[in-house]
Amino acid sequence: MPHAKLAQIHVETADEGAPEVSPVSFKMFNRIVDWITNERLQLINVTDRINEVVRKSGIRDGMVHLQSLHTTTAVFINEWQDALLHDVRTFLEDLIRRESYFRHNDPTYSDCERKNADSHLRGMVMGQSLCLQVRNSAVLLGTWQSIILAEFDGPRSRSMSIQVSGV
Amino acid sequence: MPHAKLAQIHVETADEGAPEVSPVSFKMFNRIVDWITNERLQLINVTDRINEVVRKSGIRDGMVHLQSLHTTTAVFINEWQDALLHDVRTFLEDLIRRESYFRHNDPTYSDCERKNADSHLRGMVMGQSLCLQVRNSAVLLGTWQSIILAEFDGPRSRSMSIQVSGV
Amino acid sequence: MPHAKLAQIHVETADEGAPEVSPVSFKMFNRIVDWITNERLQLINVTDRINEVVRKSGIRDGMVHLQSLHTTTAVFINEWQDALLHDVRTFLEDLIRRESYFRHNDPTYSDCERKNADSHLRGMVMGQSLCLQVRNSAVLLGTWQSIILAEFDGPRSRSMSIQVSGV
Repeated sequence: MPHAKLAQIHVETADEGAPEVSPVSFKMFNRIVDWITNERLQLINVTDRINEVVRKSGIRDGMVHLQSLHTTTAVFINEWQDALLHDVRTFLEDLIRRESYFRHNDPTYSDCERKNADSHLRGMVMGQSLCLQVRNSAVLLGTWQSIILAEFDGPRSRSMSIQVSGV
Repeated sequence: MPHAKLAQIHVETADEGAPEVSPVSFKMFNRIVDWITNERLQLINVTDRINEVVRKSGIRDGMVHLQSLHTTTAVFINEWQDALLHDVRTFLEDLIRRESYFRHNDPTYSDCERKNADSHLRGMVMGQSLCLQVRNSAVLLGTWQSIILAEFDGPRSRSMSIQVSGV
Repeated sequence: MPHAKLAQIHVETADEGAPEVSPVSFKMFNRIVDWITNERLQLINVTDRINEVVRKSGIRDGMVHLQSLHTTTAVFINEWQDALLHDVRTFLEDLIRRESYFRHNDPTYSDCERKNADSHLRGMVMGQSLCLQVRNSAVLLGTWQSIILAEFDGPRSRSMSIQVSGV
């Protein structure tokens, strides 16, 4: 198999901006941020909003943990480009088709009146929490990485709990 | 594209229960918890069990990290409703069909006697670790969010390592 | 439903190697590690490399956070077995077919010349960040768990930011 035989080149970069391993004071900062959505399946670029909270926290290096408080939403990373966002929507709509039979949507089995089994499954597959590094008072992201909050059962009001921790 | 043009309303809630950004004493607490499963594909609501460990840790605000120590399991969030759990099982069984051809199940390529390639792929897609916030000595969860441990190759004994950290 | 009725046996193991809940000095350590990939879809076992960084950090117990800085990659856990890796590739290639129509690959909608919508969707589904526990100066992993970096749009040079935090 090619995987095992690959001569991989590892280049380690000393990371000058990072705090070294000496003991440091641990800090924590929490905020709840809300969004009003207006489509059933909607993708929202929350990168700037998360960075504002990180800046406000006064924490320079550490982690930011994002947790959407709703099962029919998700938080994930991708490039923020209109054409690609269209593909993301199509992919999720095809992977879990709203019109398929689901017990959660069937009054014989369920008292859920929203008929949103597809929303639940999409949220479950994509995940509702995300941990990212904080470096130099900003979320560490690659050039093409944006943080996306996905609404799968809108329009609704949605809350995300943001926790910044570190030094 | 509607995504870019949306007027999103951001409401930021000052979170009174949270420790502010002053330096605080960092604490850590670790426990391994085991479950005996009795079906091949089984979903277990572990929310109460995780909350017990969080309470026992004495940590009020921070993070809890859950890590199942087995490739053929997963840990994720969804609503705990019988009808929906049935849909979750059906979705995972359809997404990765046990009876498909897999090299991992083929004695020509693999010495695995469990024929559990489907279990590996389900575990990989759903993920074996989960990070959640701890607030006021409890796991922060939305109204409908439960923590679910999924067994994909039972019956077995399964271990989850739980780490609570914070202040 | 069987899920709710199951008599689950919980066995809690006091974890002797773990630091107890007394306040301890918090430490952080960051490194960027690079890999040169040489296939379009390539799976790389990065477990040993991550463990080297953890050892070098001097941190005994805590967390290691891995974040690939590229949207067309992923980081996840699975068993490192040739036959299974073949199944993983086949599964991802079938779930998101490269030759499907995507707006991201269509010059009418997109200026992306790499025609890599499939790579973006694979990266999004599998996720680009992973949080794992550190115990006794090593990444905590079950017997069959390896950390896998997936290249979905190689050959390229790829960077992962590794943050070790704890005590």
